Amino acid sequence: PVSRPRKKPVRLPPDVSLEDFEAAIKEIQGAIGDENVEVNDKPLVDGWYMQHPNTHDAFHITDQEELVSSAVVYPGSTEEVQATVRWANKFGIPIYPISIGRNLGYGGAAPRIPGGVVVDLGKRMHEIINIDAENASCLVEPGVTYFRLYEEIQNRKLPLWIDTPDLGGGSVLGNAIDRGVGYTPYGDHFANRCGMEVVLPNGELLRTGMGALPGPDGADNPTWQSFQHAFGPSIDGIFSQSNFGIVTKMGMQLMPAIEHQSYCFTFPRDDDFEQIVDLIRPLAQKGILGNIPQLRHVIQELNVTGRRKSDFHDGSGPMTREEVRAAAAKLPLGDCSWVFYGTQYGPSASIAAQLEVIKSEFFKIPGSKFFLPSDLPSDHYLHDRSLVCSGVPVLRELDWLNWLANSGHLFFSPIAPTRGKDARTIHEIIVKAHERHGFDLFPTLCVAGREIHYITNIIYDRADANMKASAVKLMREMIKECAEKGFGEYRTHLLFADQVAGTYNWNNSAFMRFNESIKDLLDPNGILAPGRNGIWPKRFRGKGWEL
Amino acid sequence: PVSRPRKKPVRLPPDVSLEDFEAAIKEIQGAIGDENVEVNDKPLVDGWYMQHPNTHDAFHITDQEELVSSAVVYPGSTEEVQATVRWANKFGIPIYPISIGRNLGYGGAAPRIPGGVVVDLGKRMHEIINIDAENASCLVEPGVTYFRLYEEIQNRKLPLWIDTPDLGGGSVLGNAIDRGVGYTPYGDHFANRCGMEVVLPNGELLRTGMGALPGPDGADNPTWQSFQHAFGPSIDGIFSQSNFGIVTKMGMQLMPAIEHQSYCFTFPRDDDFEQIVDLIRPLAQKGILGNIPQLRHVIQELNVTGRRKSDFHDGSGPMTREEVRAAAAKLPLGDCSWVFYGTQYGPSASIAAQLEVIKSEFFKIPGSKFFLPSDLPSDHYLHDRSLVCSGVPVLRELDWLNWLANSGHLFFSPIAPTRGKDARTIHEIIVKAHERHGFDLFPTLCVAGREIHYITNIIYDRADANMKASAVKLMREMIKECAEKGFGEYRTHLLFADQVAGTYNWNNSAFMRFNESIKDLLDPNGILAPGRNGIWPKRFRGKGWEL
Ligand SMILES: Cc1cc2nc3c(=O)[nH]c(=O)nc-3n(C[C@H](O)[C@H](O)[C@H](O)COP(=O)(O)OP(=O)(O)OC[C@H]3O[C@@H](n4cnc5c(N)ncnc54)[C@H](O)[C@@H]3O)c2cc1C
Ligand SMILES: Cc1cc2nc3c(=O)[nH]c(=O)nc-3n(C[C@H](O)[C@H](O)[C@H](O)COP(=O)(O)OP(=O)(O)OC[C@H]3O[C@@H](n4cnc5c(N)ncnc54)[C@H](O)[C@@H]3O)c2cc1C
Repeated sequence: PVSRPRKKPVRLPPDVSLEDFEAAIKEIQGAIGDENVEVNDKPLVDGWYMQHPNTHDAFHITDQEELVSSAVVYPGSTEEVQATVRWANKFGIPIYPISIGRNLGYGGAAPRIPGGVVVDLGKRMHEIINIDAENASCLVEPGVTYFRLYEEIQNRKLPLWIDTPDLGGGSVLGNAIDRGVGYTPYGDHFANRCGMEVVLPNGELLRTGMGALPGPDGADNPTWQSFQHAFGPSIDGIFSQSNFGIVTKMGMQLMPAIEHQSYCFTFPRDDDFEQIVDLIRPLAQKGILGNIPQLRHVIQELNVTGRRKSDFHDGSGPMTREEVRAAAAKLPLGDCSWVFYGTQYGPSASIAAQLEVIKSEFFKIPGSKFFLPSDLPSDHYLHDRSLVCSGVPVLRELDWLNWLANSGHLFFSPIAPTRGKDARTIHEIIVKAHERHGFDLFPTLCVAGREIHYITNIIYDRADANMKASAVKLMREMIKECAEKGFGEYRTHLLFADQVAGTYNWNNSAFMRFNESIKDLLDPNGILAPGRNGIWPKRFRGKGWEL
Repeated sequence: PVSRPRKKPVRLPPDVSLEDFEAAIKEIQGAIGDENVEVNDKPLVDGWYMQHPNTHDAFHITDQEELVSSAVVYPGSTEEVQATVRWANKFGIPIYPISIGRNLGYGGAAPRIPGGVVVDLGKRMHEIINIDAENASCLVEPGVTYFRLYEEIQNRKLPLWIDTPDLGGGSVLGNAIDRGVGYTPYGDHFANRCGMEVVLPNGELLRTGMGALPGPDGADNPTWQSFQHAFGPSIDGIFSQSNFGIVTKMGMQLMPAIEHQSYCFTFPRDDDFEQIVDLIRPLAQKGILGNIPQLRHVIQELNVTGRRKSDFHDGSGPMTREEVRAAAAKLPLGDCSWVFYGTQYGPSASIAAQLEVIKSEFFKIPGSKFFLPSDLPSDHYLHDRSLVCSGVPVLRELDWLNWLANSGHLFFSPIAPTRGKDARTIHEIIVKAHERHGFDLFPTLCVAGREIHYITNIIYDRADANMKASAVKLMREMIKECAEKGFGEYRTHLLFADQVAGTYNWNNSAFMRFNESIKDLLDPNGILAPGRNGIWPKRFRGKGWEL
């Protein structure tokens, strides 16, 4: 979308006068260079995925200007990150670190407190510090995207895979810190981290894992990317989905390239859902499914073509099941309900053996069909999944964004048990909520052996304030109704963080009180990403910022 | 060994008068029952593995009475654990939780501060709260041993494996908290935890992971044992290898039973070591090795027979290589140097295919040989490994303890990279140190794709004060020399915790200072396991307790 004139002037950080703000900007310019500080006083441009803004949330679900930064700073080194943090403490300015800021659907690059300063790490800190081919690992700075890491590995002709989310433009480090997921056997990104370097909110520098033990002659520790822990508590986890530190380096384990085969199954009836989930469970637990497969509803065969909803449907209401059926019938997979996208790994003989087991299971569902990439036209989505599932970053999922004019989207991402009955309970809550608010439902279920990341994508027209308001209501209702059944989100858009965090309230919110006490210890001035993941520092807590 | 009369009377907690101590004991008896509190005033009995003491370290490496408790308490519920913690705060008494206390080789059940009160959780809190066969998981209390969990699963005829360390008498929960390891594909115990309940040092109760979200109608969360995280920071890790909380419940993922095949390879020359390690690396990284194999020196073929060293060697010096060779020649595997114990998993066709690959790799080493259990007599150790590697708890490793009269042992457990050259560096440090101090070297290398847990077992005669002093010197030198090369311990005996923690001193000990700040936040009175894993609370820090 084109840029719009700003309704309001620069949004200052809370409790900071214009004069102090200007002095602060001068000081940080002095510390890291004039050209590395930008005041956010120009029109806001939503851009698109590859040119996303660091000034606000490109996929704004409230007013475009609601979550707007006052400025953005670009540190060029760990020392400059430390300088930035000390500066924020001095002026009491909330700072919001991003690695790349492509967290679209979860709030993008926006600060939670309007007027916060965005610390855009990726612009200048994007070195691949090391790729250790023998150890199958790398050490990266925040700005290293999946695309960049992939390219470098190809340039060096190394037989290594990276694990990428559905879109390849994100930050390897930033996504892991947010506990994002991908689709090779190394799909749990945070679980595959190995060693971090963290700037604490007071400016102190910490290395986790074996990095805490100095290497000989001042080198990095030789096992930093080999073993995840140190001696003593394993502290890495508290820097994920939190606001306890700024991660400046992260080690990641890389997967040795192996043979693989992607495929899909289709199932005829919407009601096959429970049985599909129950058939996946043992296959996943036994490791016959080598990665986290996706189970999608057939409506997503439509939107991933990149076509407009208006091609299939008139008016603003959700598509009917009949319309979906009619449109799907004309697509390569045909009229069906659920589509299972899987990939097998290993020597071709094992793959063949595994596929036989998997087929014999899924064929228990009458009318189910099996497809290999070779059965489908070259532009079918299965070919893109085959890439993602073998560590090749792509952009195919962006095609969804053509669904509406001016599409933005919002993820609802609860955890469900891998049990048909429970999965149906949550599915029905989500179906009904979408019906109530008139949204098409796009469920993608990432089904592991014990739990499902049930990811739904709420697509809305960013120019339609009513539609946005409905999307917000839809989210709030789903969060609430799922929590009543015990189902909570694994991650959420920053505007819903308070509500989601509030559902994790066992024993008088012991977990949040614990997090708050750590927050106040590490960040007494409350400068680091206040409100991120629902954690508010003392300075802002209970003062009306929670939503 | 028989019990010895105590040299000293009850060892009181530091800064607590006899009068206050007696008042304190009365109070805790009132809270949890007279019969659940024992003052440690009787003779100390070292017992044996299955009847280990909770009064001191059964494998004392200094004087038997050095690490002695003042009393032991047996809480029967989470509420009683909370009551115990509040009591400790009130009287300023250091308390040391154990689950079972069979942490032999790492300090057993001993408190780090003499006169501390041991909180023996396992005696009364040993319920298997749930085994969820569909979800392949369990929820256990501290006192559930591997044996107990195994039996229960067999009683219920469930097709599930547990993962057990080399000895089966430990606590499923306690071992995981100490980040112990086992040998099925689920061998990283802490990595397979799923949800914890923790009593904080102030008596507050916390649930981690999805347990932080209440289930419907006050039930436990339905995904507590399905997904490891909550929304927000992942805090479980800070309760491992620390003294930040008492874990009262833990979820563990269980492995679906599958086919398996154990085997071993022997290699002829000591110098094959580097090549063996380099051959393992790609096999492990590619997942062709399905678990963490053990690489052992042939001397361990001798001690695992349960025979005395004096059968093979005269005098107190270490065995010579020639003596080992001569003795090994008479054993089933014959004269060799290194023995690789592996296990493959999956359908028999995959196992066969994997074994072909593995053989073709290891047979690159001239003179290497391959053995299946069927090739070896029924009392050979390979049969026990086959059990452990398929989740059956055993006690075979206890046979080591016959090596000397009155054997105790001590583990030295550094992390080495899985790279021949580096592994040799660390191996040589350890070899030379053992030679210097006249100890037999018993190395067991648990070799993963990127790192090796290099576990050595220093066996000493508990009645020989000089030998114990030498063992301590040996440890201290190995810790120091390894650290100089960047190699640090993953776990250590409580008497060496300060030294080991001190090697993790990057950037002016940022990691320890971080841990200390968390400690002081959570435990301002410094009552919970002061000194455990090298973390001292403010009250004791820098006051002469560090070793
Ligand atoms: C169509 C579509 C499909 C998607 N599919 C997936 C998917 O398959 N899997 C998935 O995980 N996500 C998916 N996403 C969500 C998102 O795009 C990715 O997770 C993306 O990688 C996140 O953006 P980023 O990497 O630029 O992280 P950033 O935006 O840089 O970081 C995310 C957040 O992490 C924190 N953070 C980042 N860096 C640091 C740091 N250095 N120190 C401290 N905190 C930091 C900040 O709070 C930041 O806001 C998808 C999005 C879209 C639009
Ligand atoms: C011959 C031999 C072989 C061995 N092989 C292995 C092996 O293969 N793998 C391995 O991992 N270990 C091994 N060990 C070491 C040890 O025996 C096991 O790790 C054993 O499981 C630890 O004892 P435990 O389970 O009783 O734990 P505990 O002694 O109960 O706990 C260990 C420590 O964890 C902490 N802790 C325990 N419970 C709690 C709690 N509820 N809350 C807070 N903190 C707690 C305490 O600091 C405690 O001291 C071996 C030992 C011997 C003698």
